[in-house]
Amino acid sequence: MTSPKPDIAFIGLGAMGFGMATNLIKKGYPVTGFDVWDPTLERFKSAGGLTATKPAETVKDKSYVVCMVATAQQAQSVLLEGPDAAVPALPQGSTILLCSTVPCSYVQGLERQLVDMGRADIYLVDAPVSGGTYRAADGTLSIMAGASEAALSKSRFLLQEMSDPAKLYIGPGGVGAGSNLKMVHQVLAAVQILSSSEAMGFASHLGLDLPRTAEAINSSKGRSWMFGNRSPRMLHPEFQPVASALTIILKDTSIITAEARKAGFATPMSSIAEQVYFAGLGRGFGKDDDSSMIRVYTEGKGKVGPIKGGVESEEGKVRLVVGLLKGIHLCAAAETLALAKKLGLDLRQVMELCVNAAGGSYMLEAFGPEIVGLLDAKSSGTKSSGSLDVIIQGLQDAVEEAQMLKMPLYLGSQALNIARLALAARPATSAEAKAGDIVRVWGW
Amino acid sequence: MTSPKPDIAFIGLGAMGFGMATNLIKKGYPVTGFDVWDPTLERFKSAGGLTATKPAETVKDKSYVVCMVATAQQAQSVLLEGPDAAVPALPQGSTILLCSTVPCSYVQGLERQLVDMGRADIYLVDAPVSGGTYRAADGTLSIMAGASEAALSKSRFLLQEMSDPAKLYIGPGGVGAGSNLKMVHQVLAAVQILSSSEAMGFASHLGLDLPRTAEAINSSKGRSWMFGNRSPRMLHPEFQPVASALTIILKDTSIITAEARKAGFATPMSSIAEQVYFAGLGRGFGKDDDSSMIRVYTEGKGKVGPIKGGVESEEGKVRLVVGLLKGIHLCAAAETLALAKKLGLDLRQVMELCVNAAGGSYMLEAFGPEIVGLLDAKSSGTKSSGSLDVIIQGLQDAVEEAQMLKMPLYLGSQALNIARLALAARPATSAEAKAGDIVRVWGW
Repeated sequence: MTSPKPDIAFIGLGAMGFGMATNLIKKGYPVTGFDVWDPTLERFKSAGGLTATKPAETVKDKSYVVCMVATAQQAQSVLLEGPDAAVPALPQGSTILLCSTVPCSYVQGLERQLVDMGRADIYLVDAPVSGGTYRAADGTLSIMAGASEAALSKSRFLLQEMSDPAKLYIGPGGVGAGSNLKMVHQVLAAVQILSSSEAMGFASHLGLDLPRTAEAINSSKGRSWMFGNRSPRMLHPEFQPVASALTIILKDTSIITAEARKAGFATPMSSIAEQVYFAGLGRGFGKDDDSSMIRVYTEGKGKVGPIKGGVESEEGKVRLVVGLLKGIHLCAAAETLALAKKLGLDLRQVMELCVNAAGGSYMLEAFGPEIVGLLDAKSSGTKSSGSLDVIIQGLQDAVEEAQMLKMPLYLGSQALNIARLALAARPATSAEAKAGDIVRVWGW
Repeated sequence: MTSPKPDIAFIGLGAMGFGMATNLIKKGYPVTGFDVWDPTLERFKSAGGLTATKPAETVKDKSYVVCMVATAQQAQSVLLEGPDAAVPALPQGSTILLCSTVPCSYVQGLERQLVDMGRADIYLVDAPVSGGTYRAADGTLSIMAGASEAALSKSRFLLQEMSDPAKLYIGPGGVGAGSNLKMVHQVLAAVQILSSSEAMGFASHLGLDLPRTAEAINSSKGRSWMFGNRSPRMLHPEFQPVASALTIILKDTSIITAEARKAGFATPMSSIAEQVYFAGLGRGFGKDDDSSMIRVYTEGKGKVGPIKGGVESEEGKVRLVVGLLKGIHLCAAAETLALAKKLGLDLRQVMELCVNAAGGSYMLEAFGPEIVGLLDAKSSGTKSSGSLDVIIQGLQDAVEEAQMLKMPLYLGSQALNIARLALAARPATSAEAKAGDIVRVWGW
């Protein structure tokens, strides 16, 4: 008797992979899981999965393999390295869904490696995901996929089982397009995970009530998906539960800056975020939830000598924090869209994807379309939706206050300087600068 | 019997002030010193000085007051606040030399305050200094002065007693010109004090022999006055002696970013340096020598999991460190000169001053004139003296290696992004970008 649904091999049962694999079990698929961490395999058995102890054994006789390991190095290892590697054990005409976040250059190289080793029969789907552990287990992830038409028609049902129907984005251009879509989305993630800590660290130095401030931010123009998601864990005394380790976002951030370097492209926001993440890593925070980066901002509190801020009222202080976030998120939106343009992605698809995924923010929704208009050189007709001077003033007020409080605002001071340089880069005109003009600094 | 040389009141006997005051004693001036720290007054007596316990008492019957306190707040306090303030006790027609590093806006405001309180008879000289404790005690400081013609003719002899004959710079424009000259010089100081730590921290992660690397840097194009000065203390296990505390350069850096904000000017290099200094302050390093900022870079060494660099040879590694410094110092030179241009300073005077003071670097000497040419829009005839692409490649190699080593390069990644943005800001041309084109990012 054969199962009505195909057997699935699932490699990598971490925080995301475990949820994705058990979601498939719940939907009636026989799933054979593999992970290097034995207790996870026990848990996976209890959840109704089959298990294997080697990648090769895991994929034996399976037409579908989902690979959800943490890094490109791990993917290379489980798929291709040594006698237990998965690929040589795969049946003819089977399909690999690589769901890990990896550089575009890696997954394109993997496609070539398959051909070079005589396994052009394998269908490779570049399919990184976004949405966090809850959506993983719920089968409602955002998925960004790139593959040949043939590979897409083979795998579409499986991509659909794992994603929200409205959040399955197929990028044109084949393998690599999914990773590039994910990468530009991660610009927002990299910046906005850190901006959440920067904002709450600033609030702490300002002497604000943190839970109340978080609430105020969530209903302000400084809001973002990341802030809504991270701030509760940030308010937990031990930053629990560990839903996404610092090392994960750091890895994704390094992919952005490395691929941008290859493209000769500047990523001032992602780059400063990466350096601060490295500082957190050096402090020993690597395995902690990334929301714990607030510690980088709060450690000097009360220990740096006589300080006095310039703003007294709670309302005024919250306004400073919101102004900080608005400015940072506008710069993040511009860096995301400018990089997407540089890579030749479909900007409207990028916008839709990001607004609906973990990269979403008020500023992206409000000013993304204006930035896209400028990047597509259709700016002249766009109605001004906001003043860059107002954004700059908000950043300036925050940076000035933080200077009085003697605390770092890495992203805020960067965003302020980027905005100033954008004004300098703008073609000579008497018109007031619009928020979207921020993207001028990248040369558009 | 009167002394052949006039009595001098000296307020603020810190690391710099003590040397400056005892230099005047050695030159035969009767000097009455004041400091809030009693043991210093005892030391000053032993060095042949007279002492007083209040500012008012210190300046009584003195025609000359040198004020060398640490901050504008302290200057305001000793000169004008409370019953013991100095100014009300000053004789008619006396001269104040304010040698502290303060914002231009402060010293110009002080000039107005003197008029408003009916003491327009006082000659105010804005005269910040540079050169470190050795030159202070030796009377060979760089001094950047701004004052009325009358005040300058009154005080020139005293400025000459404290400075190297070739290093007394009178800025045009009266009070404030000295502080602005000092401020733009401090852009180089702020960036190059930190770049010294960043370079040696990088060398440490690379596994280089640090004393040998320091020697190699000092005879390379990555050399700077600050590196030569700071690296020996950086190599001392306890960062001794404390010649210049972190709080001092942090204060000067905050003056730069605050005055730049007022002018609507971007200072991406000074700003990131300031944030990293704030991080050091929060870690409790405020009173330590600023060379100890290397700790911000080395703390994660050996603790961040499996890492592997891409460069094996000692020669190749040193080349990475030098490439890092060259790129950072080029950006620092451009930020200094662009800010000087924005403030309307004499760029040739700024160049001469900086090259001969603590801001000096190979890159400033080599490419400063080219940057000045671009800022003065006389670029077309300038012969290309270096390729920006070569600088970018050096930065990129360093940033890439640091990423593999999982360590932050705050200034290096900033410089790389600035250089990329400068290329994007350059007017369309087929000519190769010159090193000086880095300044294009500021809108020139």
